[in-house]
Amino acid sequence: MIQIDFQNVLRESIGQRNGLDKRFFESYLKKRQPLVKKVLDSAQKPGYAFLDLPKDLKTVQEIEYVVEQEQKRKWQNIVVLGIGGSALGGIALQEALLGTYSNLNHSPRLFFVDNVDPDYVNSIFSLIDFRKTLFIVVSKSGGTTEPMALFSIAKEMLIRVEPKYYADHLIFVTDLHSGLLLKIAEKENIRVLGIPSKVGGRFSVLTAAALLPAALAGINIQKLMVGAKKMLETIQKTEDVKNPALLLACLQQLMDTKKGKPMVVMMPYKNQLFRIADWYRQLLAESIGKNPKTGPTPINALGTTDQHSQLQLYNAGPDDKWFIFMEAIKPGVDQKLGNVLPKEIGFLNGKSLDQVLKASLQGTVGSLTKNGRPNINLKLDRVDEEAVGGLFMMFEFQVALLGLMYKVDAFDQPGVEQSKIITKKILSGKN
Amino acid sequence: MIQIDFQNVLRESIGQRNGLDKRFFESYLKKRQPLVKKVLDSAQKPGYAFLDLPKDLKTVQEIEYVVEQEQKRKWQNIVVLGIGGSALGGIALQEALLGTYSNLNHSPRLFFVDNVDPDYVNSIFSLIDFRKTLFIVVSKSGGTTEPMALFSIAKEMLIRVEPKYYADHLIFVTDLHSGLLLKIAEKENIRVLGIPSKVGGRFSVLTAAALLPAALAGINIQKLMVGAKKMLETIQKTEDVKNPALLLACLQQLMDTKKGKPMVVMMPYKNQLFRIADWYRQLLAESIGKNPKTGPTPINALGTTDQHSQLQLYNAGPDDKWFIFMEAIKPGVDQKLGNVLPKEIGFLNGKSLDQVLKASLQGTVGSLTKNGRPNINLKLDRVDEEAVGGLFMMFEFQVALLGLMYKVDAFDQPGVEQSKIITKKILSGKN
Repeated sequence: MIQIDFQNVLRESIGQRNGLDKRFFESYLKKRQPLVKKVLDSAQKPGYAFLDLPKDLKTVQEIEYVVEQEQKRKWQNIVVLGIGGSALGGIALQEALLGTYSNLNHSPRLFFVDNVDPDYVNSIFSLIDFRKTLFIVVSKSGGTTEPMALFSIAKEMLIRVEPKYYADHLIFVTDLHSGLLLKIAEKENIRVLGIPSKVGGRFSVLTAAALLPAALAGINIQKLMVGAKKMLETIQKTEDVKNPALLLACLQQLMDTKKGKPMVVMMPYKNQLFRIADWYRQLLAESIGKNPKTGPTPINALGTTDQHSQLQLYNAGPDDKWFIFMEAIKPGVDQKLGNVLPKEIGFLNGKSLDQVLKASLQGTVGSLTKNGRPNINLKLDRVDEEAVGGLFMMFEFQVALLGLMYKVDAFDQPGVEQSKIITKKILSGKN
Repeated sequence: MIQIDFQNVLRESIGQRNGLDKRFFESYLKKRQPLVKKVLDSAQKPGYAFLDLPKDLKTVQEIEYVVEQEQKRKWQNIVVLGIGGSALGGIALQEALLGTYSNLNHSPRLFFVDNVDPDYVNSIFSLIDFRKTLFIVVSKSGGTTEPMALFSIAKEMLIRVEPKYYADHLIFVTDLHSGLLLKIAEKENIRVLGIPSKVGGRFSVLTAAALLPAALAGINIQKLMVGAKKMLETIQKTEDVKNPALLLACLQQLMDTKKGKPMVVMMPYKNQLFRIADWYRQLLAESIGKNPKTGPTPINALGTTDQHSQLQLYNAGPDDKWFIFMEAIKPGVDQKLGNVLPKEIGFLNGKSLDQVLKASLQGTVGSLTKNGRPNINLKLDRVDEEAVGGLFMMFEFQVALLGLMYKVDAFDQPGVEQSKIITKKILSGKN
């Protein structure tokens, strides 16, 4: 389970200026409790359908069937062509559950190509043997420029090495009701897995978009779904500060609108959780960044690393941020330091790396708290499938609540259209 | 050379609200021109000594001599133990000049261990054969907690496999005048390269801190220094808007203090430049984030990737950011798309990936400009040693100027002390 320590947003910890009065905060949550039910009752509406994903065991079975078939083919590489919500969830899963350097010792290797920079694309494509590579093209709408451009290149290279069987190297993940990928798949006999029409791209981590690459790389997606399901039950059953999604939503709104904190820094003290913060960055920014008065700016940082990069600003600079820390109570492995260090730094001797990490987190939390800067700490028991599945659901629910609180549509993104139109005009020679 | 297109900060492009009047801007720069000389004249003062580094060919020769010796030993891995300024410069160099996935096809592999998270450390240490690994411990002060903890573990493992010769697997990079690393080196006969006392950690990218790992991995550090030197000459010789450091400093200050933009988004349209934006994040935040009224918040993004994550917020959300784009006019390689895509997206057929990338940048710039959001574009001819060396010097000079403009000490970081004291107390059992 995930525990949230929110002591350091209260007046008794951080003082009048930024601190919340405990009774005010409790009544603020109580008043917004009905919004939880409102979100839960909306599962049939476009956007909100991410709520039904943990129940959808058919999709998990379908993915596992595909994975079983593909494992027999002993792919060396799984390469995902996707961008934004079609990549961030899968990347977060890979880093959280396979570790930071999994492509150096894990088979099959899993690459996400989420840009059209030719040097970057070449740095991956020149590494892989196309005959031993499975490509997954992910696009909810089916026509996103970047994955389509990448598909075009991958297809040509596949045809060169496997003229008859190139389609066997491809799986599409897209909306089953419409879109270009669907059309291409039918024509060229390429396999397709679906993203439910009512689930938005940035809410699609628990669909085939991220689950298929994750499962192909060996991640237990059933446990991930169990974690999401348990989190949903917790959100359904609990009230007030015990409801993690409601707690996080109210804090975000209060810090942004009442305490003058337009920025929220998500700073896990765990490398494996860093890309979850990156996934969250899209979720919050695209869902709530809707008009000049509405849109907190999410910022990612990593502890302890960014203590030596951003903490000076966080502690001493403008008081315009609040902080979400994350930690895993139990590490996967730990390493004990010997007694080799001289007395000036002898306090490290005999400690374990995890002790140093945790003490550093306490140092950061302590200093921010002394400076009156609001911060909370999300404590995972350990980084495993269930915890990660729970995190995804918790944050998605938080953001759905924020949509209602801020009175914006959390599921559209009209602000990127203008850019797409200009780009298309230039490439069509109509500029 | 680096060209800066700043058209889209002017009124004629983005309108009254955020736009600068051209004549006002020119006279604003002219008034601050003397600050350039003031910085140049300070090269002997603590902090400012980074200005002298491009002239210091002795250090480059010393590093190249070490590299020559080490290359004979055919290391499989170079592992840098360092954090903050002792890692970010080296990481930026690796990604910019060796590419994103160099550890998958480049020898020796180069790892930066910049955290004490035990699972993360294990993900690297379990990959490498310690007998074939050279460790570089980097700490300007010589006593930073994280690298010392990591050194303690690496040393024990080295002693296990090379009891007599473990010291041959270690090089320290530190201030030659004081510090714990120096003491340990003398006692244990470990080689040491210096970081000049008057160069701060976050300004140390052109010292052995980053140059030694870079050179060991095959990067031409002489050319890097040539790039920095040429940039310094440009800054010395040119005035007003032609002076890139002065231009960037004035823009940063005006956007922050006169146009209500506390956030600056650095968004290269080039994967190789992404970690330079990360390096810049420390440089700006730690140098200028000094008091509640002073400290712009740097934010990193990547094009086109983050168009699908942050552009919605940037275009439609609160008007509290300004934008620095970066691009390389000429890519290292490019790939042409075939004619395989259906007509709905046929505008991609026959284009190259770089054309798509550039058109996407124009789309983003165009949409932000239409929405009145100030943005500039730094155009590198290509991503090579000279250009990258120039970027480092340009940004360091900008930040030195900003220190004078904001009237803060750009070279200290008192705001991280409190956190260190708490951490040490906890680990010493004195809490």
